Amino acid sequence: MHKKLFIPGPVEVKQDVLDKMATPLIGHRTKEISELQGNICAKMQKVFYTDNLILLSTSSGSGFMEGAIRSCTAKKAAVFSVGAFGKRWYQMATGNNVPADLYEVEMGQAITPEMVDKALATGDYDLVTVTHNETSTGVMNPVEEIAEVVKKYPDVVFCVDTVSSAAGAKVEVDKLGIDICVTSTQKALGLPPGLAVCSMSEKAYNRAKTVENRGFYLDLVKVYDAVVKKPHQYPSTPNISLMFAMDYQLDRILEEGLDNRFARHIEMAEYVRAWGRKHFELFADENHLSNTLTNIKNTRGISVKDLNAELGKRGYMISNGYGDLKEKTFRIAHMADTTMDEVKALLAEIEDILGL
Amino acid sequence: MHKKLFIPGPVEVKQDVLDKMATPLIGHRTKEISELQGNICAKMQKVFYTDNLILLSTSSGSGFMEGAIRSCTAKKAAVFSVGAFGKRWYQMATGNNVPADLYEVEMGQAITPEMVDKALATGDYDLVTVTHNETSTGVMNPVEEIAEVVKKYPDVVFCVDTVSSAAGAKVEVDKLGIDICVTSTQKALGLPPGLAVCSMSEKAYNRAKTVENRGFYLDLVKVYDAVVKKPHQYPSTPNISLMFAMDYQLDRILEEGLDNRFARHIEMAEYVRAWGRKHFELFADENHLSNTLTNIKNTRGISVKDLNAELGKRGYMISNGYGDLKEKTFRIAHMADTTMDEVKALLAEIEDILGL
Repeated sequence: MHKKLFIPGPVEVKQDVLDKMATPLIGHRTKEISELQGNICAKMQKVFYTDNLILLSTSSGSGFMEGAIRSCTAKKAAVFSVGAFGKRWYQMATGNNVPADLYEVEMGQAITPEMVDKALATGDYDLVTVTHNETSTGVMNPVEEIAEVVKKYPDVVFCVDTVSSAAGAKVEVDKLGIDICVTSTQKALGLPPGLAVCSMSEKAYNRAKTVENRGFYLDLVKVYDAVVKKPHQYPSTPNISLMFAMDYQLDRILEEGLDNRFARHIEMAEYVRAWGRKHFELFADENHLSNTLTNIKNTRGISVKDLNAELGKRGYMISNGYGDLKEKTFRIAHMADTTMDEVKALLAEIEDILGL
Repeated sequence: MHKKLFIPGPVEVKQDVLDKMATPLIGHRTKEISELQGNICAKMQKVFYTDNLILLSTSSGSGFMEGAIRSCTAKKAAVFSVGAFGKRWYQMATGNNVPADLYEVEMGQAITPEMVDKALATGDYDLVTVTHNETSTGVMNPVEEIAEVVKKYPDVVFCVDTVSSAAGAKVEVDKLGIDICVTSTQKALGLPPGLAVCSMSEKAYNRAKTVENRGFYLDLVKVYDAVVKKPHQYPSTPNISLMFAMDYQLDRILEEGLDNRFARHIEMAEYVRAWGRKHFELFADENHLSNTLTNIKNTRGISVKDLNAELGKRGYMISNGYGDLKEKTFRIAHMADTTMDEVKALLAEIEDILGL
């Protein structure tokens, strides 16, 4: 039996979107693929509220995160982490001999604009990374307030990981001055995994051109150059099947309306949070709760593993706590095309299993 | 109208294989995905005639090529190139500050075992890369003879690019002592693009562990460690949809029988070569012609672009010459699940268009 996915990616994907993946292939050096690329770019610009170029990489979101920090750090990167995926930026920097400092907060807390300001004021950094939404803890960082601070430092390239929030929460790239906004298809965009997506500003591009040792496959200059110039194609063969599905799903997203979509995510989030507070406690700081995932403290000492096994028999799947939080928390994702009715049905099953 | 692809990837994919991509998604940290990974690994080991571990990367073939040369060169790499894709190994090395020397031959010629022997005898190198099948020229290098030479140098990690030949021509990885054999889904395997595949020997793995600055996403140690240990999963979310299709297509390939499949490729190749010799000339050295693609010299001075446009109206697509060979040659791929009847139908259309 198929299990409906309430995990923070891969998410449940509508069958008509999945079916688009079965479209017969076209050449990757054709007019048709350039058109497809152009259409996806135009639609993603709306989702990101940006005029910046949209790039695709046949990789997971990690591919473009690594490409960004490696390609665009000339001096030193300041990495602000609130969990496993924030720390990943730092591992990517050190794994590539890119100078970087890691700034962390207690698990469940958010980055403060003051932390960022203090770090950037040292003048040591020319790139900063922030995770918008951290699925390991359930925290959504105050990216708008952080952006106000980053704007004070015009030489700093501002990189934001919206892997688990893009198309599920509003992130206005141009208004916030985000130079590289990275996301991935298998989260709130409601698509299968297989493509990373980012917007890239000219400022980030110009910086990258000054950086040596950018590698090959994840070199953002190579990808940008290939896409910006006619005929708008990729350096190597992209995941064409997923591009078909992405083009189609972006139409669905824009038809729903971005504001409606974000409102639906907030409605689902508020419902799950209220349920979590009623029966358990929430893990993350109440002022910085994620709109796409809720991390619930296992205050009842249930076996999360057993709960998920029983849910599996009923056609559902949630996530255990991440890493050290295994069995200490459990996570319910409410993103992409999931509806309130589906969220309610899931929670009713959990109540039934636990006798709540 | 869909155009049947006779280009060197992406190739024509059977509809039932494409349909497998539309399978509802499963979590990437589940028993089901570990099983899927295990099944693909076991089947690819047969295709590669190896007991080495099979790794997948959500990237184009270039991803694992870069991962291999960067992760496994401790001293210096000797790159043997017979065209654009051979040279790509060198660009990957230099782009990552990996010491490397480039050995080239005249376009259309093959690498000789003597060249490799002479280079390795210097003792300068601890890694060698060879392109098995070069689609930019139509040359298939004598990988078996080269392997005999490489065996004389037990400290050298032997990397072979079989991107456009794996499952279309026999490459016995263990017999040839290939440490890293890289391929990609969208060529002779008969799948859509979106995954790179490689086999990796323990020798290559042990070498990689001594190399620093291997990066993150394409670090072969990270991928190997994640896959070899239980529960056999990937460091980041893989292209699950294509894994479903790959598992299915590998069954189809093994049902056809590898020897039958290779024989079918040779039969198609011989037919296209004979046709090419009759009406034009072949570009590549007669002793080293590719089994999966034929590169034909445009001795009649036709417009390849116009020919392809007319073929497009009839539902077919071939490739122009690569790079500087544009209009000077044209390329017909005959790989994956293409049949003799389909090849004959294509050539009949070309004859009709050109009045041959």
